[in-house]
Amino acid sequence: MGFNCVLIGAGNLATHLGEELKSKGFQIVQVYSRTEESVKTLANKLETAYTTFTNEVTGKADIYFIVLKDSVIEEVLPLINFQNKLVVHCSGTLHLSVLKSYSENYGVLYPLQTFSKKRNVIFSEIPVFIEANSEKNLSIINSIATKLSSEVKVTNSEERRILHVAAVLACNFVNHCYALSEILLEKKGFTFDILQPLIKETADKIRSMSPKKAQTGPAIRFDETIINKHIELLSDNTELANLYKTISKSIFNLYQKPE
Amino acid sequence: MGFNCVLIGAGNLATHLGEELKSKGFQIVQVYSRTEESVKTLANKLETAYTTFTNEVTGKADIYFIVLKDSVIEEVLPLINFQNKLVVHCSGTLHLSVLKSYSENYGVLYPLQTFSKKRNVIFSEIPVFIEANSEKNLSIINSIATKLSSEVKVTNSEERRILHVAAVLACNFVNHCYALSEILLEKKGFTFDILQPLIKETADKIRSMSPKKAQTGPAIRFDETIINKHIELLSDNTELANLYKTISKSIFNLYQKPE
Repeated sequence: MGFNCVLIGAGNLATHLGEELKSKGFQIVQVYSRTEESVKTLANKLETAYTTFTNEVTGKADIYFIVLKDSVIEEVLPLINFQNKLVVHCSGTLHLSVLKSYSENYGVLYPLQTFSKKRNVIFSEIPVFIEANSEKNLSIINSIATKLSSEVKVTNSEERRILHVAAVLACNFVNHCYALSEILLEKKGFTFDILQPLIKETADKIRSMSPKKAQTGPAIRFDETIINKHIELLSDNTELANLYKTISKSIFNLYQKPE
Repeated sequence: MGFNCVLIGAGNLATHLGEELKSKGFQIVQVYSRTEESVKTLANKLETAYTTFTNEVTGKADIYFIVLKDSVIEEVLPLINFQNKLVVHCSGTLHLSVLKSYSENYGVLYPLQTFSKKRNVIFSEIPVFIEANSEKNLSIINSIATKLSSEVKVTNSEERRILHVAAVLACNFVNHCYALSEILLEKKGFTFDILQPLIKETADKIRSMSPKKAQTGPAIRFDETIINKHIELLSDNTELANLYKTISKSIFNLYQKPE
C-alpha cells in the first residue's frame, strides 16, 4: 500500500476520487488537466502539485488514474509517457483495452455514482467495478478499491457498459425529468420544492418494491383523455410534448407486453 | 367537523385517503367501486359498508369523494344521485367544472403524491391542492384538507393541471426510467439493487441543488462516442434505443439553449 498516485483529470469524479484516495492514506503526487482553473483548485484541495501540460506529467508515480471525460481519454493517453506504470481508467463505457497501447499494466476502477464537486458522497457505499490486464494488477486495484468502498466487484468491460447504460437511465434521465418539471413549474410561478415529497417517495418506494410494480399515473392506465390534455398543455414546447408522448407510449407498452 | 363521507372508488388513492380520513376522525359510511374485490378489501379495512352498484350509493352522506381513475369519472358521475351534497374529486387534471352538473356543491382535493396500496405514506407531508365552487364549500374542504396535511394550498384548475404534468414527469417518468434500467440489468444477470446508492443520491442531490445544475453523464457533455456505444448496446430493443436517443437529445438541447 501507500502508492503514489497521479490524477489525469480534475472534474467531478477526479475531485471525489482524489479526496477519497487522500483520506485513505494514498499520496496524490500530481494532478493534470488542461483547464488551469480546475486543476489548480483540485491541487490546492489535495495539497499537491499540478500541471496543464501532458509532457510535464511525472513519470515517478505508481498509479495513474485517468479521470477525464470519455471523449478525450483517447486523445490524451498518447501524449503521456506512463513508463509502464499502472494506468487505471474510471469510465463505465470504455473498454479495458483502450489502455493497452500505453502501458503494460492497466485496469479499470469504475464507481457507479453521480458526482458533483459541491456535493459530498459516502464513497464506502458506492459500488465499484474493477478489471485489469493481469491478476497482479487486479489485485493491486482491488486493494485500493476495497479501501474506498465496501462494494467492490470484478466485472468485464461488456458488463460494465451495461451498468453504465442502466446508470444513465436511472440517474441522468431521471435528473432530466426533474429538470423538465422544475422548468415547467417555475414558468408558472410554482417552486420546484412542491415536488420534493413526491420525488422522495418515488425513489424510496423502489427500495422495497420493484419499479415495475411501483408505477402509477395516467400512462400505465393508458388514460388517453388525460395524456392528451397534458400534451395539449405542453403544446408551446414541441420537444417536451414529444418527449411526453414518447415516454407515455413506452410506459404503456411495457405493461402491455407479456414478460 | 365529523362529516360522514362516501368514497367513490377503491384504488390506490381511495385506500390511502380513506384510511387517512378515518384516522382523523371522519366517518366513512360507504365505499363504492364496480370491482367487487377492491371494494370489499377497502370496506373491510375501513370497517364500513360497500356497494358495487351506483344506484345503491347512499344519499345520506355529507361528502362524496370521487377517487376513480380520471377516464371513468365522467361516466360514473351521472349514475349517482348526490342530492346536492358536497362532491369532491381528487384528480390533478380534471377541471373543477366537470362536477357542476351533478351537484350544487362541489370542489377538488388533490394530493400530490404517488400512492400504492401496499406502501405507507406520511400524509401530513403531502402537498394538497384544493378548489371549490363557493367560499363555503372551499372552507369545508379546507377544514378537511388541513386535518390531513400541513401543506394545503388553494389552486385553480389550470394551475393544478400544471402540477399534475410536473408530477408525471418527476414521478411516473422517473419510475419508468427505474423500470427500464431494472429490466436491462436483470437481462444481464445483475440485480437492480446495485443502482440503489445512485438512485438515492440522484434524488437526494436535488434537495440542495437545482436539477439543472445537478446533471452529469454523457448527454450533457454531448459525448457522442459514448452515446453511440450505448445506443448500439440497446440495438436489440428499438424502442429503448429510440428513447435513449430522444432523452439524450433533450438533455443536450436543454444545456445548449440560453434560458
